[in-house]
Amino acid sequence: MAPTETASAAQPPAWVLFSGGKDSALAALCLEPFYDVTLVTVGFGVDAAPEPGWGIARATYHAREAAEAIGLPHRVVSLPESVAHEAAERTLADGYPREAIQSVHEQALETVAAAAAEAGGDTPPAIADGTRRDDRVPRLDRPAIQSLEDRHGVDYLVPLRGFGRDAVDRLARDRLEVAIGPSDELAKADYEAAIRTLIRREHGHDRVDELFPDHVQSRVVGRTEQ
Amino acid sequence: MAPTETASAAQPPAWVLFSGGKDSALAALCLEPFYDVTLVTVGFGVDAAPEPGWGIARATYHAREAAEAIGLPHRVVSLPESVAHEAAERTLADGYPREAIQSVHEQALETVAAAAAEAGGDTPPAIADGTRRDDRVPRLDRPAIQSLEDRHGVDYLVPLRGFGRDAVDRLARDRLEVAIGPSDELAKADYEAAIRTLIRREHGHDRVDELFPDHVQSRVVGRTEQ
Repeated sequence: MAPTETASAAQPPAWVLFSGGKDSALAALCLEPFYDVTLVTVGFGVDAAPEPGWGIARATYHAREAAEAIGLPHRVVSLPESVAHEAAERTLADGYPREAIQSVHEQALETVAAAAAEAGGDTPPAIADGTRRDDRVPRLDRPAIQSLEDRHGVDYLVPLRGFGRDAVDRLARDRLEVAIGPSDELAKADYEAAIRTLIRREHGHDRVDELFPDHVQSRVVGRTEQ
Repeated sequence: MAPTETASAAQPPAWVLFSGGKDSALAALCLEPFYDVTLVTVGFGVDAAPEPGWGIARATYHAREAAEAIGLPHRVVSLPESVAHEAAERTLADGYPREAIQSVHEQALETVAAAAAEAGGDTPPAIADGTRRDDRVPRLDRPAIQSLEDRHGVDYLVPLRGFGRDAVDRLARDRLEVAIGPSDELAKADYEAAIRTLIRREHGHDRVDELFPDHVQSRVVGRTEQ
């Protein structure tokens, strides 16, 4: 028998990539009973901070608000602004954002895995994301997952990988208070937001709407009471 | 805001395929915060009950003991004994159990999904299993999952699909008391156990050992204290 009443305090750490949206929030809630969860938002510094001195850009600020709303600790990990610029160029060249988002996600996981390994000691934090069974991108195949885990010595967890869209939507309704609206009015710290911001600056709203026709986004504003 | 303190009583039902082993137990523990979990063991009636009147075969009896040990309700769903016989023949013909186990799993999911739909009403139980990211079999591909869900109107959940072996083993150590031993001494209600039983009867222990070289099994005997 396990001896202790404080076992829950000794849960292993996990860093969950967090955009402020419902999927990444739900991934965090799935891990919470088993891991000591920290939400990690990838920032590119491409969006102006709303006030001087905040130190993080607008989208990551909103992710931090969402993290506070669900009561989990939050940190920002920075990727070079060049990653977002390359993704914007790729999206413009392809005419759709799929490959660009995949590439940014891979670079984000590499950066977060390296940061987790560095933070680590004997048990570096597991890293996780909110991708679902039905997400075609971003998605790591089995060899890419194995490589990521082996090179950094971390577990990579995808808590929603075994859940379809209906099940995820039902869980989100049960557990999360979510605001839904057009992307541009509901800043979220996902890769799409960064890419949209860059393209809007140089090519205007209409070009963004062409490249991202599905523009409704969700942002988590709290947990439901249980 | 959600109005109620009894929301947890209204969690949607989920039936988790349960062998008595650690993977299926852990899948149940992952769903438990979000679903009203019932463990479901597939029985084939190929193994004699240890005492008259138990009404379920030995392997399913041990799964029921494991379910009681982790404090979750349990039910047995019967598959025709012919399914196990066909799987034994297939294993003998192939020289390995992989395809046979895949086939039995597909039939088990069909049967359990149909039973869930029948039990259902507006929200039939979701069905789930304990397969992991690194399990090559049993494994349903995306079209098979979609077909299963659409035909029966149920969600199919695979809570450990996004977890690798190391992460699953660590969670099991944290949460479960597990007995480990040779398969023949540690009866478990997985498909392998049924196939082994049939082959042993007709072809003896040595043939079983040839076909199933990895013979160490785990059985859950309780939860760790948290």
